Amino acid sequence: MILIGEKLNSSRKAVAQAIEARDAAAVARLAERQQQAGAHYLDVNAGALVGQEAECLLFLMQAARQGSDLPLVLDSPNPAVLERAMAAYAGDAPILNSASLQPGRLEPVADLAAGGRAGVVALCMDAGGVPQGAQARLAVAHELVSALTARGVAEGDIYLDPLIEPVAMDGAYGPQALSAIGCIAAELPGCHIVCGLSNVSFGMPARKLLNRTFLVAAMAVGLDAAILDPTDKALMAQLFAAQALLNQDEFFGEYFAAFRGGRLEG
Amino acid sequence: MILIGEKLNSSRKAVAQAIEARDAAAVARLAERQQQAGAHYLDVNAGALVGQEAECLLFLMQAARQGSDLPLVLDSPNPAVLERAMAAYAGDAPILNSASLQPGRLEPVADLAAGGRAGVVALCMDAGGVPQGAQARLAVAHELVSALTARGVAEGDIYLDPLIEPVAMDGAYGPQALSAIGCIAAELPGCHIVCGLSNVSFGMPARKLLNRTFLVAAMAVGLDAAILDPTDKALMAQLFAAQALLNQDEFFGEYFAAFRGGRLEG
Repeated sequence: MILIGEKLNSSRKAVAQAIEARDAAAVARLAERQQQAGAHYLDVNAGALVGQEAECLLFLMQAARQGSDLPLVLDSPNPAVLERAMAAYAGDAPILNSASLQPGRLEPVADLAAGGRAGVVALCMDAGGVPQGAQARLAVAHELVSALTARGVAEGDIYLDPLIEPVAMDGAYGPQALSAIGCIAAELPGCHIVCGLSNVSFGMPARKLLNRTFLVAAMAVGLDAAILDPTDKALMAQLFAAQALLNQDEFFGEYFAAFRGGRLEG
Repeated sequence: MILIGEKLNSSRKAVAQAIEARDAAAVARLAERQQQAGAHYLDVNAGALVGQEAECLLFLMQAARQGSDLPLVLDSPNPAVLERAMAAYAGDAPILNSASLQPGRLEPVADLAAGGRAGVVALCMDAGGVPQGAQARLAVAHELVSALTARGVAEGDIYLDPLIEPVAMDGAYGPQALSAIGCIAAELPGCHIVCGLSNVSFGMPARKLLNRTFLVAAMAVGLDAAILDPTDKALMAQLFAAQALLNQDEFFGEYFAAFRGGRLEG
């Protein structure tokens, strides 16, 4: 599994305050903690700071780099912001989050990423919004992959996001999401499949339990990347267990290391 | 999900002692606790008491009945023992555990169950033992269903058990088991799919974590019954979460009841 740390997001109050105060040390600490907890990428998002998103994202990037050498996931719906972020970026190839089939949301992002310069999170939505049902998402996924590869993004650099909706709104959304993941994994095996974990539990009690349960179910049908909180100990324990059961952990190396480190308890 | 309580098994020392002492009250308490915890069936197994299995199983059945009115899963590899148990059985239709394609292990069990008198756990093994790989298990599953239905057992009374092997022996066993469950669910949708949860984690540390993680993964691909410990709180919390996410819990009734009862914590 490819683990993308979610915590450097301006929708979180502590992060918004750290950005406004230009408190690089606070941001660096959050970056460092996520790396130590096992993240492979760190998502950086300054979208909540309206009118100053680009400047704030550049600050987040620089401050995160003081605490971690992990590659970043540059997170903005605005291709112009992603362009400025890419121009300032230093480090291993980042992932751009995101492109979609909405007007103006694919080509400029693809052009920034082409040739292996960056991965691309591709949201399964088009001009009409989020299509309903697994088959409609799969059709959009195929269109996204065709359009991105046509502009020079390799399949292995594409992270398809089927856009999980909250089960509290409709109980059918859970099976639909898993079906979409399974179909994408079967038909587009060269691409990654990513999701933001926490949306599935919106509006429900005991959200962390639902999030880690959904992670296991989604991994069982083909999810191979997730945006999550790597400092959530119960979530990570379940992730290690799922990797062991799905033969994704050679010689159970991560599982045994986590066990010896007391990270499978609770 | 159909939950079969696993605790009334003579391989557990406390149960073997209760049987030997003919301590019906101790057995009744274990039965009652499993029913209160949410079991739908109670497995009863006296196989560890060599030479007196049938008598001991009859005692277990009668003692369990003093603590619970749940239907029982009569658990013996010996059709003659199952015949004596069926003759003495009182209560809602039980499940016979088990039949297989091994010589002499199918016809007598099918004849006891035929016409809705009992369900049958059908192990995916034949004269050659446990076949390797998902496709080979699926082929045995088809044979089992053909043979059982030919003798009058309805598909809806068949509980196919793909026989999960410990991942500690071979990391590929986890994906193979999930693939077998997925294939059986797709090709034999009229049958139930059951497994004993704990085998998957044999030889590994933090077994309960692995067991509940495997339960979620298996439910995601089609498992609809399990032999498990319903008094394991973390396991049951995860089960309620999985049911909610898989749209198997109308209006999230069980999930919210568990939440209000403090059974989703920890």
